[in-house]
Amino acid sequence: MTSLPAWRRGIETPNRFGEAVRKARTAAGLTQEELADRSGLDRSYIGGVERGERNPTLSVIEKVAEGLGVTLPELFSYSAKGPRA
Amino acid sequence: MTSLPAWRRGIETPNRFGEAVRKARTAAGLTQEELADRSGLDRSYIGGVERGERNPTLSVIEKVAEGLGVTLPELFSYSAKGPRA
Repeated sequence: MTSLPAWRRGIETPNRFGEAVRKARTAAGLTQEELADRSGLDRSYIGGVERGERNPTLSVIEKVAEGLGVTLPELFSYSAKGPRA
Repeated sequence: MTSLPAWRRGIETPNRFGEAVRKARTAAGLTQEELADRSGLDRSYIGGVERGERNPTLSVIEKVAEGLGVTLPELFSYSAKGPRA
């Protein structure tokens, strides 16, 4: 297993946040490409966020929420909802 | 007015997030110092986050939530609650 960057070790959040983005994106019926366009981000970056490989800043998290058409509380609530699909 | 860093211009989030941290911190009866200790962050950094002067990453946001004893959805919901105090 490749060694995780310091911010990743033992931190569940990037996975949970990635899952929340994926759930919100599919709920909005968007492809990663469409979300990338709407967020002004790169498609491969969106993919990395969803796989829990990125540690986005607050301003990037806001761009993703705007691209999804949800507020930040709504976006993060996707990570709290029910067992993993 | 000093010029704002690129990520700050026109972005409301850092202010709203800073406000959410302040509201959650006061609701938990913590000083900035106590929150800094519990989060493993610097007191001045916490002050900067609350003033909207910081652009924390997801892993730092999680540390703040852990220090406050709340989940990420709960922390962000403080920013959605009611008119500004």
